[in-house]
Order: sequence, then C-alpha cells, then structure tokens
Amino acid sequence: MANRPIVTLTSDFGINDHFVGTMKGVILNIAPQAQIVDICHSVQAFDVLDGALAIAQSYAYFPLGTIHVVVVDPGVGTARRPILVSNEKHFFVAPDNGVLSLVYAREERIRVRHITGEHYFMQPVSNTFHGRDVFAPVAGWLAKGVDSGKFGDEISDYARFNAPKPKAADGRTLRGVVLKVDRFGNLVTNFTRQDVPMLFQATPPAFKMVIGKTEITEIRSNYAEGMPNEVFGILGSMGYLEIAANRAAAAQLIGSGKGSEVSILIEGAAAAAR
Amino acid sequence: MANRPIVTLTSDFGINDHFVGTMKGVILNIAPQAQIVDICHSVQAFDVLDGALAIAQSYAYFPLGTIHVVVVDPGVGTARRPILVSNEKHFFVAPDNGVLSLVYAREERIRVRHITGEHYFMQPVSNTFHGRDVFAPVAGWLAKGVDSGKFGDEISDYARFNAPKPKAADGRTLRGVVLKVDRFGNLVTNFTRQDVPMLFQATPPAFKMVIGKTEITEIRSNYAEGMPNEVFGILGSMGYLEIAANRAAAAQLIGSGKGSEVSILIEGAAAAAR
Amino acid sequence: MANRPIVTLTSDFGINDHFVGTMKGVILNIAPQAQIVDICHSVQAFDVLDGALAIAQSYAYFPLGTIHVVVVDPGVGTARRPILVSNEKHFFVAPDNGVLSLVYAREERIRVRHITGEHYFMQPVSNTFHGRDVFAPVAGWLAKGVDSGKFGDEISDYARFNAPKPKAADGRTLRGVVLKVDRFGNLVTNFTRQDVPMLFQATPPAFKMVIGKTEITEIRSNYAEGMPNEVFGILGSMGYLEIAANRAAAAQLIGSGKGSEVSILIEGAAAAAR
Repeated sequence: MANRPIVTLTSDFGINDHFVGTMKGVILNIAPQAQIVDICHSVQAFDVLDGALAIAQSYAYFPLGTIHVVVVDPGVGTARRPILVSNEKHFFVAPDNGVLSLVYAREERIRVRHITGEHYFMQPVSNTFHGRDVFAPVAGWLAKGVDSGKFGDEISDYARFNAPKPKAADGRTLRGVVLKVDRFGNLVTNFTRQDVPMLFQATPPAFKMVIGKTEITEIRSNYAEGMPNEVFGILGSMGYLEIAANRAAAAQLIGSGKGSEVSILIEGAAAAAR
Repeated sequence: MANRPIVTLTSDFGINDHFVGTMKGVILNIAPQAQIVDICHSVQAFDVLDGALAIAQSYAYFPLGTIHVVVVDPGVGTARRPILVSNEKHFFVAPDNGVLSLVYAREERIRVRHITGEHYFMQPVSNTFHGRDVFAPVAGWLAKGVDSGKFGDEISDYARFNAPKPKAADGRTLRGVVLKVDRFGNLVTNFTRQDVPMLFQATPPAFKMVIGKTEITEIRSNYAEGMPNEVFGILGSMGYLEIAANRAAAAQLIGSGKGSEVSILIEGAAAAAR
Repeated sequence: MANRPIVTLTSDFGINDHFVGTMKGVILNIAPQAQIVDICHSVQAFDVLDGALAIAQSYAYFPLGTIHVVVVDPGVGTARRPILVSNEKHFFVAPDNGVLSLVYAREERIRVRHITGEHYFMQPVSNTFHGRDVFAPVAGWLAKGVDSGKFGDEISDYARFNAPKPKAADGRTLRGVVLKVDRFGNLVTNFTRQDVPMLFQATPPAFKMVIGKTEITEIRSNYAEGMPNEVFGILGSMGYLEIAANRAAAAQLIGSGKGSEVSILIEGAAAAAR
C-alpha cells in the first residue's frame, strides 16, 4: 500500500446531506493519510446500473492500488452481502448487488470476498447507513494496510448482471436504449463503436437513427461541427454512441431521456451486432 | 497539531459559485499541508438550524484535532462575533449565531473564544464574505499550529438554541416536526429513539403516526422491507425516527416536507416524552 | 514545484457524471502526490464568460505555484488550441477560447504557450473529452515537475475578450448588466467600486438603480441591514455592485436574472464611468 493511499467514493447519496462527509470522517479516522477523491455522488437514487456505469467509466484512470468505494445500496440492512473485490490492480468495496458488474466484465483475475470481519465495522452497525458503518471503515482499514484476506472468504456466487446490449430487430435494424443523459443533455446510448463500426468510418454509409419522433442522419466528429439546433450522432468519450447537439441539450431538443429506445437502420446492421 | 491537519467545511454556499473554492485557496495558502474535506455545502440558505444538524451529524466521526469550519451566516458583516470553540478533541470555527448549538449539547469541557485577533484575517475584511476573510484564515492558522488562545478571549454568553423537541399533547399523543428531508426523500423527524423507545422494540405496541393526511402504522427495520408505495417509520442513521418508503421518496408520496408536523399516538407516550 | 503540488479544477462539467472524478484519476495517476481542489464545476454549460468569472474570483487566493485547470470548452475536438499560461506565480491549463481573459487582465508577465507536446496526452485523444485526455494529463505532468517550456512554444495571438463594462448612456445614466446570480439569489452586476465610487461613500448622493420594473434607492453595507423584502445595492465580495435582499433571493423577488440590464441614475455618473 502506498504511503498516501487513494480512496475514491461513488454513491447515490447526493450532496445535500452529511452522508458523504461522514464517510470521509470515518475513513480518515482510521487512515489519516488517505487521500479521498469523489468520483460522483449523483448516481440516480437506488439505480444500480447507473452506479455501475459511473464506476466503470472512471476507475481505470486511477493509480494502481486505488481503493474504490461504491455505495448504491437499496438493500441496505438486508441479507445482501458487503463485498471486497480485488485483483493485482484495483480494490473495490461495495454491496453485492451487481453494482460492480461492469468491472467484472472488464477486469481479469478478480477475487470477490464476502466481508465478514465485523470487527472492522463501526459498532453498532445501523440498518440504514452501511456507507458509514461498513463500507467506509473497510476502505479505511484497507488503506491502513490490512490484507484483503482478513476481511472474509472468497465467494463465487456474487451478483452480476449484463448491461443492456443492442439487439438486431431484423437484417437492417438495431435496437438499443439511452443509458443516461449527461450534464450537457447528451443522450448516451448503449451502442458501442464495435456494435456499429461502419457509423464511425471516415465516410459512413447512409443510415437513419430513430429516437421518439426524431430521425437522425448525421454523425459528427466533434460537437462544434453541429449546425444550430441540429441533433446528430457522435462517438462519445465513454465509448458509446451519443445523441448530441452543438452548445445545446439534445435531450431537451428532442424530448427524450434515460430509457428511451433508439433504433439504427443501416445495411449490414444485424451482422455487426452479432 | 498533526503534520497533515484536517479541516472540514460545512456551509450554505452551495456549489454553483466560487465561494467554497476560494475558501480552500485561503486555507491552503496559509497551511499548504492541510487536508480539506467538504462535509456539506447545501445547508439551506440562511438556515442556522439546518447547519447545526449537518455539523452535529458528522464531526464526531473525524480524527481528534480536526478543525471544523461552519459557515451559515446570515448576519455576516454585523456585530455578531466570530468564535473558536474547542475542547481536547475538536476545533470549530463559526459565527456566533447558534450554528454550533448541537455541538454544545454533545461536547464537554468546551471553551468558546471570541476571535478578535484581526491580524489573522484577510485584509481588508469584506462585509459580505467572512468565509473567505475571517473563518478560512483562522482555520488556516489553526492548522498551521497557532494556539487557540492567541485568537481571542473566552466568552460565556455565546448564542445557543435548543433544537425543537417533541412535546406531549395529551397522555397518548406526542407532537414533533420534520427537521429535514434527505436526498432519498426520507422525512427526518425530531423524535429520537429515547423519545419513543417502545416504537423500536422487537414487537412495538399498536400506534399511529399522523403527518398531513397520512396515517402510518408500520415500523420497518430496513428500507427494503417496505411494500411498494408503503410509507413507514424507521430508525434512521442520524438517531431520529424517519418516515420513509422503499426505493421511493416518502416526502413526494405523502406531499409533506421540512417543518411538517408529525403526531404519534401511542399508549404511554407522555410518560416517555418527559 | 512543491512536494505536494496543488491542482485546482474549474469546469462546466457539473457533478452528475463521472467527468470530474475521471480527470482526478488521470492527474493522480501521473502525480500521486498532487492535492486536487475543486473550485467550481457548475459553470454554466458552454459559457466561457461564466468560467472566466469563476477562475478570476478565486485563483489569486491559492498558494504560489498552484496549477489551475479550467475546462469550459464548447470547441472541444476542433482546431482551438490547448494552452498553458504561466508567470512566476501561477499556472493555468485551458482551451484557448478566452476563458482566461480575466486572468490576462489581472496578471503581469504572463507567457502563453500552445500545448503541442502530444506525448503528454492520454492516447488516443478523444474528440469530446479533452478534460480527461489533454488538460488533466498536462496538469499532472506539470505537477510532476515537467518544465513549462516542454509543452510547447509561446504564442501571442491567443484568444481574449473584454468582460462587459458599464457604459454612460448620458451625463447621469450608466448602463450595466447582471453578470451572474449567486447561490443566494444576489444579482452580481458588472459595476465595480471604481465605476461608481460615490455609491459606496459613507453618505452616498441620491441615486436610482433600475432593473426591470424595480427601482432601487438604498445601498446597504451588509445583508442583515436590509428591511424585510427590501431589495438594495451592496458592494459584494467579488468587488462588484450586487443587488441583494436580507435572507431572501433578490433575483426571485424582482424577477430578474443573468443578462438583465441595470441602469444607475446619479449625478456625475458619466464622468465616473470614463
């Protein structure tokens, strides 16, 4: 463990309460040398997939050995297990509800442990705030140098789900969905570059993207290329196809949002989707 | 003072302006080794009780010697005094308007000083931003190791108020209030476990909780136990009775909010409240 | 470079996404000893002037040698240049779109470099998130101790604009504008103390300030002096005349906001404005 271990926090706790500050206090009380970094606390309340997307987009940019605490935990206080996930590069502390599913999909040689070492918890453990009572102190002790193995035994039946993937509706139609709307009103779809490679060629073939009542026929390579009020497709920084506008919120312009269905009509679509 | 002193910030400055960032600059300019931690900047604007609740919920989780800066300060620029509060465990820097009242209620052997050492302030001192000009620099010098006694003399007539407490309306009715609504829409009341211990027994007696037009008759021990759309009571992590729902915002479901009156009808209520 | 270099972040990325957390990961991966401080991420989306105001209000409070990263970047992915601005006191990393204009106006002996050292970037560089791929890594390498000169050559044709200044409409009328509304609903105008010094004398002469349908005739020296529901002028902590109310949001009370025109009628106005 570095002499200045990094602990990141991702949660749906928002910023209107003392929750996040309290977690930081708990961590620093155990490991005063820790450097705590907020990734995002505006995960949609109770939305495990949204939390999975947030941590998946950011963890890999942090230094080796970083401890990532992810608390999106609608089952707090129930029998769902607290887990510690690690490989030689990263540590994750989270509830076992699938919020690390996209990490599992990307990382190799991971070990998932059921955290049972209750002497590492804040006592008494509440039924409503395991961020403070379970996840923060475990992160603190990890940062302090306690070995992963001390927290509990490995398990293999941990919860995981597959992020929604685009599907071929027929030979030339792919159906996907809007995963999230970002701060700028860009609609982040679940189409990756690999799903529709031809869209991102220098000269893409004719295609039509349909979302709600809007038809989109342009791919731009940067936001500023867009015409005023034009809504276009763009390869976003998360690796997903985004529906965007230049200096405007596409979500508002077309009246669509998270969960909206997106269809792409293009020759050869079904083959690509396979 | 540790070689990496911790300074926490709690305020009603929000996050849409440069205010908090500027305070951090002032502190780091004096004490570059300080580690600054945000507790919460979304205290309701001008709401001293809301600020008192935020700091009271979190300070005790931080390491010994932490310096807590609390700026909810509608009287900025008037004669209200800046104060430095300390005991052997914690330091607090705040305006003398009662925002530390719940700290006074919990801590022993505190000393309250009127900060008069103006050479520790940013000069000139504005009339509108003492967070930057008074409280941040005092925290910086404290973090740098300046002795508390240097900032000013002890006073005993500092401002304090009592948080609203539930009252017995008759032999079987207690009246309380919603202190705040948290990020998840939980309504945090001012009933503590001690006010209504029988509610949190393994098998609570029959009771009725009334808020607005809603009657609540269930206590749950974790959120996930709630039925869809059911609104129930639960012992929250702040030590208060909360009115909550499972994966939904109780405040929205029942149309109540901060300041709403809450009555509990239960046998033996008045005795408990005494 | 200090052994604990400070890097500040100012952006329009908001706090609902992973963007800011990802930038912090990139910086820490290069310079794990860096201390990262958020100034503000709620700059109005795409609003370069708003970003210029945010950084201009705060940078000077930070220690010498602080690295300020400012990302308000509607032209991301186009030919607009990334720049590194420095003098003996501060470093700034930003897109060359004028977001540092108010820094240029206040600082002397600045050098502006076109960042061309692409080996310092994250590869591949996306067209949509230079905060992660260009600005954060450059800040990281700067924090790590790489010399400014290594990043690229000096340029003199960098983009800059003048912040809107009040103008004399006739001998006794000055016209200005609301630059922003702060968290408390104060309307921050572009009138500085120097523009209307007589307003801030101990006994100001008769004057009238007009905004929308509201006439303001009082200057207060602190917020608490205001009568209930009174809207008044006050010298704000940013050095600008603000339109404010006591424990209330002036913007809401008078129904005005960012961009609203403000006129001051006062004897000798035109002379002062010159």
